[in-house]
Amino acid sequence: MSSNQSTPQQTESPSHPHWVGETYQDVIQFNYRITKTLYHQRSSFQDIKIVDSVRMGRMLLLDDCMMTTEADEFVYHEMITHPALIAHPKPESVLIIGGGDGGTVREVLKHPSVQRIVLAEIDGDVINVCKEYLPAIACGLDDPRVTIEVGDGFAYVNKTQADFDLILVDSTDPVGPGQILFSPEFYQSVFKALKPDGIMVNQTESPFAQSSELKPIFDRLKDIFPIVRPYTGSIPTYPFGFWSWTFCSKQYMPTINLRTDAQAELSKHTQYYNAGIHQAAFALPNFYQRKLGLL
Amino acid sequence: MSSNQSTPQQTESPSHPHWVGETYQDVIQFNYRITKTLYHQRSSFQDIKIVDSVRMGRMLLLDDCMMTTEADEFVYHEMITHPALIAHPKPESVLIIGGGDGGTVREVLKHPSVQRIVLAEIDGDVINVCKEYLPAIACGLDDPRVTIEVGDGFAYVNKTQADFDLILVDSTDPVGPGQILFSPEFYQSVFKALKPDGIMVNQTESPFAQSSELKPIFDRLKDIFPIVRPYTGSIPTYPFGFWSWTFCSKQYMPTINLRTDAQAELSKHTQYYNAGIHQAAFALPNFYQRKLGLL
Repeated sequence: MSSNQSTPQQTESPSHPHWVGETYQDVIQFNYRITKTLYHQRSSFQDIKIVDSVRMGRMLLLDDCMMTTEADEFVYHEMITHPALIAHPKPESVLIIGGGDGGTVREVLKHPSVQRIVLAEIDGDVINVCKEYLPAIACGLDDPRVTIEVGDGFAYVNKTQADFDLILVDSTDPVGPGQILFSPEFYQSVFKALKPDGIMVNQTESPFAQSSELKPIFDRLKDIFPIVRPYTGSIPTYPFGFWSWTFCSKQYMPTINLRTDAQAELSKHTQYYNAGIHQAAFALPNFYQRKLGLL
Repeated sequence: MSSNQSTPQQTESPSHPHWVGETYQDVIQFNYRITKTLYHQRSSFQDIKIVDSVRMGRMLLLDDCMMTTEADEFVYHEMITHPALIAHPKPESVLIIGGGDGGTVREVLKHPSVQRIVLAEIDGDVINVCKEYLPAIACGLDDPRVTIEVGDGFAYVNKTQADFDLILVDSTDPVGPGQILFSPEFYQSVFKALKPDGIMVNQTESPFAQSSELKPIFDRLKDIFPIVRPYTGSIPTYPFGFWSWTFCSKQYMPTINLRTDAQAELSKHTQYYNAGIHQAAFALPNFYQRKLGLL
């Protein structure tokens, strides 16, 4: 979920397990002591690595960027999913762009009204590796309600018209292959692929990222969606430990007229999300509001 | 604000500025590229280091643990201060234990009702170094309302009776010299040093720390104070990027009957805190509630 920089590593030896991690924009480095590298291959798209860490459980890294860890993946996957699905009165059809680890699918499947999930992931190897090495995250990918489309997410959205209640953009960063998923053209296509009362959620980087990285994305979204509300959550293994998503909606508001009964039932099965967190996530610190031009 | 572990560093050279950071419990490492070491001495109590980093501004490290950085210090200092001072109807006298960098003093001074601040910091060298190298943080230390007591905070609290509206425990971690500031005896003394309607706030580690580190502290506080409410904020340079404080009160509640006019005025001069953040901070994720036995 951050920029592509390789990380210096210590030499591996049985008595001295090495460190694996991410270097963010060549100025911040976060490393985790690991006990084992379980998988390390280059796919057609990227370098894929699975390691066991001492403190954060098993980890998936793509191009040396931390994608998901067993210890904190629940924050990202619950927060990209539940606020929008609880704000929608009857979510039935959901498109996920990216999200090949399956964590977002797993969370969407917690909503009984959902009948159809399409996962459009560009890298089939990510799906296969996560099914094998991260079964607790990928567990929903074989559910009969799920269709997996291995291919370009933008192309899939482009050929779709007014078909989905929700589109969740579970993308990498706005650099390299993920960049297109932050473009005005992509957002326009998502808008068309949503039903007239649809909601899109996308991951929108850390509030501690530079204003020049955050503001253009926010402005683009406001050009297209009538309701655009950033929200936040704490993810230890992402840069700065503080992350944002943006709720982009044609009609429904993010914090009123929620399905509170469904929310109470859902919260029995979540590790981060609950009714208080739903409201709290949309309260933005002053510095972030200032970066976005909201204050 | 975390455990004492030295950090491997690359060799310094003009063309290859090195990295400085913290290793947390020997399993997580976060490093920052720096351009210059401005100060590095051992005081009677600890190793004190001031460096200039590329991304997070100037930094203070004590015993190779990150204490404060110019880029994110506002979160910690605003959040240890403003929720309690806005919940108290008329805060006039405030005791700060620790907090030698002066950031907490600076925030307390934003409340016009405050007439007297005592800062009890054990290490006079920290105060002097911060005055010289971190003037934007230490700026309030020379204010006439501030008395600096260089010495043992526990001893200072012990000789004080019903004297303070608020006591803010701006301590290091519950290891080494900071350990005593998490003991039942210390909390008892703080209770006695507070007026009959007083409030204590202490920093209580990351919600992502082990339950065995968090639960005993919470239980001890509940044994002594009738109202004990943990709350959170996001601090990139502390372990896991997600931090907690605990609001411990004899009478006033943390989220009702707030001084909203003062809050609105204050929020013009803060970078993190505002009315929405005040409420949001007390909404706790399920995993944290479970660790504390609240769910």
